[in-house]
Amino acid sequence: MKDYALLSANELKQEFAVVKEEYEQLKNLGLKLDMSRGKPAPEQLDAIYEFYKETEKDIVFKAENGTDYRNYGIFDGIDEAKELFAEMFEVNKENVIVGGNSSLNMMFDILAQAMIKGMGGEPWCKQGKVKFICPAPGYDRHFAVSQYLGFELLQVDMTENGPDMEAVYELVKDPLVKGMWCVPKYSNPLGITCSDETVKKIAQMKPAAKDFLVMWDNAYIVHDVYGEGDKLLNLYKEAEKYGNEDNILIFTSTSKISFPGAGVAAMAGSKKNLDLISERIKFQTIGPDKMNQLRHIKMFKNMDEVKQYMKVHAEFIRPKFDVVLKEMDEKLGGNSIASWHKPNGGYFIYLKVMDGCAKRVAELCKEAGMVLTNAGATHPYGIDKTDSGLRIAPTYPSLEEIKKASALLCTAVKYVSCEKLLSK
Amino acid sequence: MKDYALLSANELKQEFAVVKEEYEQLKNLGLKLDMSRGKPAPEQLDAIYEFYKETEKDIVFKAENGTDYRNYGIFDGIDEAKELFAEMFEVNKENVIVGGNSSLNMMFDILAQAMIKGMGGEPWCKQGKVKFICPAPGYDRHFAVSQYLGFELLQVDMTENGPDMEAVYELVKDPLVKGMWCVPKYSNPLGITCSDETVKKIAQMKPAAKDFLVMWDNAYIVHDVYGEGDKLLNLYKEAEKYGNEDNILIFTSTSKISFPGAGVAAMAGSKKNLDLISERIKFQTIGPDKMNQLRHIKMFKNMDEVKQYMKVHAEFIRPKFDVVLKEMDEKLGGNSIASWHKPNGGYFIYLKVMDGCAKRVAELCKEAGMVLTNAGATHPYGIDKTDSGLRIAPTYPSLEEIKKASALLCTAVKYVSCEKLLSK
Repeated sequence: MKDYALLSANELKQEFAVVKEEYEQLKNLGLKLDMSRGKPAPEQLDAIYEFYKETEKDIVFKAENGTDYRNYGIFDGIDEAKELFAEMFEVNKENVIVGGNSSLNMMFDILAQAMIKGMGGEPWCKQGKVKFICPAPGYDRHFAVSQYLGFELLQVDMTENGPDMEAVYELVKDPLVKGMWCVPKYSNPLGITCSDETVKKIAQMKPAAKDFLVMWDNAYIVHDVYGEGDKLLNLYKEAEKYGNEDNILIFTSTSKISFPGAGVAAMAGSKKNLDLISERIKFQTIGPDKMNQLRHIKMFKNMDEVKQYMKVHAEFIRPKFDVVLKEMDEKLGGNSIASWHKPNGGYFIYLKVMDGCAKRVAELCKEAGMVLTNAGATHPYGIDKTDSGLRIAPTYPSLEEIKKASALLCTAVKYVSCEKLLSK
Repeated sequence: MKDYALLSANELKQEFAVVKEEYEQLKNLGLKLDMSRGKPAPEQLDAIYEFYKETEKDIVFKAENGTDYRNYGIFDGIDEAKELFAEMFEVNKENVIVGGNSSLNMMFDILAQAMIKGMGGEPWCKQGKVKFICPAPGYDRHFAVSQYLGFELLQVDMTENGPDMEAVYELVKDPLVKGMWCVPKYSNPLGITCSDETVKKIAQMKPAAKDFLVMWDNAYIVHDVYGEGDKLLNLYKEAEKYGNEDNILIFTSTSKISFPGAGVAAMAGSKKNLDLISERIKFQTIGPDKMNQLRHIKMFKNMDEVKQYMKVHAEFIRPKFDVVLKEMDEKLGGNSIASWHKPNGGYFIYLKVMDGCAKRVAELCKEAGMVLTNAGATHPYGIDKTDSGLRIAPTYPSLEEIKKASALLCTAVKYVSCEKLLSK
């Protein structure tokens, strides 16, 4: 391990020669790797599928009171599913709506509704150019939805404790700032969890907009990988203390608990918001897929069992995280050219390299046969002005592939860092 | 059978006394009937469920090329499902999108998209007060969606051949008239199928609005009950002849083929429209429930098999339709107080009574323990100005219940007709 910051120009040149050689060797392997996909590996799905098959055998698609879940009706989700998600969200059952297979879809529909019908006030589309707070680096699809709907994206930094709340407090003075995104636990892509203080600040916030929405996408709510995982303060309950619960919408799904292609999504919110949302859903559909909701309930039973399922997932994910983190520690630790947060769960590791180097690293990786998430994709409008962040998604490839991928990544980072330091 | 139009006042009084007595007797039975629900009976679902269970046993949730349908991706439906629905719609696979479990949801989302983003032109919400053509009697949820989105509902009559196209041609001269609804086959609630001439007129139509949408909700596309069923001309192909395919969106779902609570919905449209719609879907979700799509394909296999499934349904529905139609024939045929179309499929029979009598009939039925669909619900804003139509939904109750329900219904119609004729 060499601290690049302490090397002389000559030493750096020597290091660059070594690293170049390393890179060329890796390039000659003709690798074909993909570290861009934030999705479960086939082995994870196979493991869960065993439980699915077992459940499906004996299932009767009826409620205890006899309601036939194969038939029409129940627009906001079956009771059993509401109960499970209430337990997961740590809120009352009355504050939960259970939907189809996609929480992104739920979020999109709520913002589209806000545009056309408003969320208690005037339709957003009639109020002027709506603005939305986007903590970055963040989830590209959040930003994309907001952009598609015509919002102006306002970037604030993600710190080690969550969104930079000082910046957020400043922005919400504008009544056209209608909401903010946040992945509060094992955030995509940083892997950090909002601190209690951050959660409290969000709960206490009094935005100028009376129809402000915190889109709290708790996608990794039970997705612990190491030990007991991080603890996240319950935003909804905190907000209630200050009468601010109408600002809070919480989302999750079983996409990464059961199957990404066929899970169940759910949300929690205040009575006022759920009434407004229910009003729309009643016009939009006769009801979500209740058979799939029941299938999930029969599979999962309760939160204790859900946690057992997550341990199955963690067994597959942990070794992959381990490999990446170990490789980065060994190759990039203490050499002043990269930093990262070691996440306790979720699906991503975010590698911060020297300013202006991220795209070049991705380019070198690509030339050697490895796809990374587009540098910049984690930022509003796809532009990371510092060009310094790389989202690493190690869950999908095999452990063998991850080993090669991490080696290539670290070498590419060293390569680009030498280039940069030498060009000064 | 007495022709009420030919009865003297005294004869009518005698008849009223008899009918009143009949009604009181039925009322004393303490009936509890519901003819308001347009949904399959439990026996229908049980029959289909046997096929479902059989399929589910051996299913492997992968494409032939190995794509894992349990994982993320494929925003517009799996290939196998596109093929089946293309066959059903009689269009090319490239013109099909397969979605979640609700075609209503697909329709709602497209109109919401048109409001916010437009359909090739300016967003509708920026063009002024949007108007939508609502052939009546029609499907209440179509009208409700339009009203929720803020459209003005323009009523045109449904004739024996479909929407009154003369009226439609007049209305589409207004560029703010952005579309029209139509259930073209076994229409809800009339049970009629659009004639070839009507389909051609819709295909040839040149609305002033360049972003006009015919919402062709072919919900009963294969839902024949008697014999070979009605034949519906292919609107999409007709429209192509005149270069008008961008005006046409076609929808259906398996809600009443497999399970209402967990079916698969699909749509067909032109490349231009599907591109616009796909653009939105890509932001809205990662993809529909692909496992359920594959489950359906494995169950149904192809259109020939789908038709066999529909024969299973028809076996349950036909006797119920028979009972209602026979009772109406015997009790109301030729007495100048009611008329109806004998449908060859679908889920409804529409009973036309004397003007101003429908609500009163529903009221009498309710007093004797039977729920009918709200008189008026079949019309825009829930108002049938003539107060003359009653939607009969005989599929859900048992055959025994249908017998009692039809008797009560016919008696109530005679009751109210006597009242009306005597009050003149």
